[in-house]
Amino acid sequence: MDLQLIGRKAKESFEVLARADSRVRENAVLWIADELDQHVAEIIAANQEDIRLGQQAGLTPALIDRLMLNESRLQGISQDLRALAVLPDPIGEIFDQRTLPNGLKLWRQRVPLGVLGVIYESRPNVTIDVSGLAIKTGNAAILRGGKETLHSNRALVKIVQTALNRSGLPPDSIQFIDDPDRRLVEELLRLNEYVDVIIPRGGAGLHQFCRQYATIPVITGGIGICHLFVDASADLEKSLPLIYNAKTQRPSVCNALDTVLVHESVADEFLPQIVRYLTPAGVAFKADPLAYRYLRDSDISGIVSPAGPEDFDTEWLSLVLGLKVVPDLSAAIQHIHAHSTHHSDGILTADSANAERFIHEVDSAAVYINASTRFTDGAQLGLGAEVAVSTQRLHARGPMGLPELTTYKWVVVGEYTVRK
Amino acid sequence: MDLQLIGRKAKESFEVLARADSRVRENAVLWIADELDQHVAEIIAANQEDIRLGQQAGLTPALIDRLMLNESRLQGISQDLRALAVLPDPIGEIFDQRTLPNGLKLWRQRVPLGVLGVIYESRPNVTIDVSGLAIKTGNAAILRGGKETLHSNRALVKIVQTALNRSGLPPDSIQFIDDPDRRLVEELLRLNEYVDVIIPRGGAGLHQFCRQYATIPVITGGIGICHLFVDASADLEKSLPLIYNAKTQRPSVCNALDTVLVHESVADEFLPQIVRYLTPAGVAFKADPLAYRYLRDSDISGIVSPAGPEDFDTEWLSLVLGLKVVPDLSAAIQHIHAHSTHHSDGILTADSANAERFIHEVDSAAVYINASTRFTDGAQLGLGAEVAVSTQRLHARGPMGLPELTTYKWVVVGEYTVRK
Repeated sequence: MDLQLIGRKAKESFEVLARADSRVRENAVLWIADELDQHVAEIIAANQEDIRLGQQAGLTPALIDRLMLNESRLQGISQDLRALAVLPDPIGEIFDQRTLPNGLKLWRQRVPLGVLGVIYESRPNVTIDVSGLAIKTGNAAILRGGKETLHSNRALVKIVQTALNRSGLPPDSIQFIDDPDRRLVEELLRLNEYVDVIIPRGGAGLHQFCRQYATIPVITGGIGICHLFVDASADLEKSLPLIYNAKTQRPSVCNALDTVLVHESVADEFLPQIVRYLTPAGVAFKADPLAYRYLRDSDISGIVSPAGPEDFDTEWLSLVLGLKVVPDLSAAIQHIHAHSTHHSDGILTADSANAERFIHEVDSAAVYINASTRFTDGAQLGLGAEVAVSTQRLHARGPMGLPELTTYKWVVVGEYTVRK
Repeated sequence: MDLQLIGRKAKESFEVLARADSRVRENAVLWIADELDQHVAEIIAANQEDIRLGQQAGLTPALIDRLMLNESRLQGISQDLRALAVLPDPIGEIFDQRTLPNGLKLWRQRVPLGVLGVIYESRPNVTIDVSGLAIKTGNAAILRGGKETLHSNRALVKIVQTALNRSGLPPDSIQFIDDPDRRLVEELLRLNEYVDVIIPRGGAGLHQFCRQYATIPVITGGIGICHLFVDASADLEKSLPLIYNAKTQRPSVCNALDTVLVHESVADEFLPQIVRYLTPAGVAFKADPLAYRYLRDSDISGIVSPAGPEDFDTEWLSLVLGLKVVPDLSAAIQHIHAHSTHHSDGILTADSANAERFIHEVDSAAVYINASTRFTDGAQLGLGAEVAVSTQRLHARGPMGLPELTTYKWVVVGEYTVRK
């Protein structure tokens, strides 16, 4: 595979795509949905080949499920594409418009970000998802999916390129590195002449690998050690279903709750309640020494164990919940500073001064007052689409929607104006 | 030097600084100006030591001038600080406020970017400049200046830290790597546990080096191969002083003009005019074959030479100007796409359709209509202060002002709201 060539074709395609009308890009996304609907059988056949090879290679049933495409999943994917197609187009938006004393008129104008390098693992739906997002916002993309989904990705990229062709856009706007050789990932990460940003979609290891090797800016994210602090004034009865939601609704994702900090004055009453309320969902608890003291003598202590030294620095991604008693808000904030990945952290309180202090002092991508951490998600926060959840500070933070796939240019209009 | 320790202290200081009131940060910047005014003699003495060593080491007079501080330069620096101190504070600004159908109230709120790693070369004024910008916006910084200015930087950082102390802010908010060992630069570039962004201030080599070695996002920029296209409808008489301004006002900087593209229909008349108008300023010309043909027989051909194959891909940073004849706007745009660094490019025209097409199709950080490229500068575009000029596409593009040293957090307020 000649990555230089792929890069050059991506850049050239980007120059055409970036100038295309909003309607043309919208139609291309709709064409992908249509093509998907018309080629369900082919896609499923290609996907079955991946599943067969995966089973041969001894992939776990969970992994096989992740890479599996069926009719209803494909239907979901084309529905998402049709919803994406009609979202407001951020490209061309004008902002910061003004006239300077020397008569220069100037503004900033949104333009596509450029060529995206997207590196992901075993979910083939990402192929379509990223293609749709990129085309909608006028960006080209070079995709590198997991080797377990090579056949599915081949079929899906063919569909995307057909749709681009039908819309009169360059098919090479979306390209796929159709070779499982791992060295190509490293090469992609150093293709800074052509690629403007690397977006990894996967676990912590992948993000770290990209940071390590990339000479291109990387949007890292997706790692969440998330906290809720139950203040002395919290409505405890309402707090239980909220904590339940944050921990158990989908424990395997980054915005799921990892640690509950409980104000000392309500610990005695509330800690056993949490354990009773969440135990039926299969949650196991890791309690700090003080919390453990409140729980150890009760009838529910069997599924509570003392927290080890690393436990408050672990993203559980499973039905485990850390419990810790803190003397006050300051101690809660201090714990969050020390252990949070600054993804999603919240306070449950009736005290507006404490809520304000929490907002001011907790510097996480999403800060919650009386709400579940599970809302850190583009669709949930009303962005219409989600590109990634960034936990870095540059460019975008938290859920990234369509505008986060853009940059801007300055436009300056003079009357043969010169600098004094 | 223990960079891990420096990093940790920077992060801890940042957590305090980021929560400090606007007024406290503003005062700290004013304190730096006061301290500078009170220690002029000390600073100049330290700077003299750098100059002495620089002369011993055989630095050129131009380099010695770059690192030299005198009373009037120091006065300029404190004036700039006082102007910076009273600029509007971007921190805390609330945007994208809305209420979702489920009752969640949400907004985004500007917060400081984090810990900046700033790597620069021989200008000691950058030490103060960056310190002021960082403190004003609530960011901590780790500075790494050139070894030629070690003594000056030591004296200046001491002043900054005294000012921080007087304002009740952690002195380690601004730290300086006081060791010329080059390996420490590489170590800084990999300090991703503590540093949020690397900002190089220097030439192309430094930017490339940072990209190559950093595991932290780098803001690269400052490299400008800048174009002006003289359209058939341009007011040629007014175009001459504009081109003169763009090329000669300060030829050594990135927004200086490198290439003039001339529409074929006015080439015969205009090319000799350009050469005559700019020759008294000492400009030499590199002409493409067609432009050369228009110029070779005239009396001014002595300072015009045929352009070599690399000439249109060279950032001149000196009194050299490329000249090329193009048949039309499309060819001009094509040349810009192929040769521009996407820093600053403009069109001189009376044709509003051509102006619009130029804005739409030329994707540079700053796009000019009938104005000099020299305006790509934070102060000139009314930003009040300039952190850097970015030519990358992520985070910020073109001149970066105070808001570009910020990020945001999402604040989500519910009533014990759970995700369905």
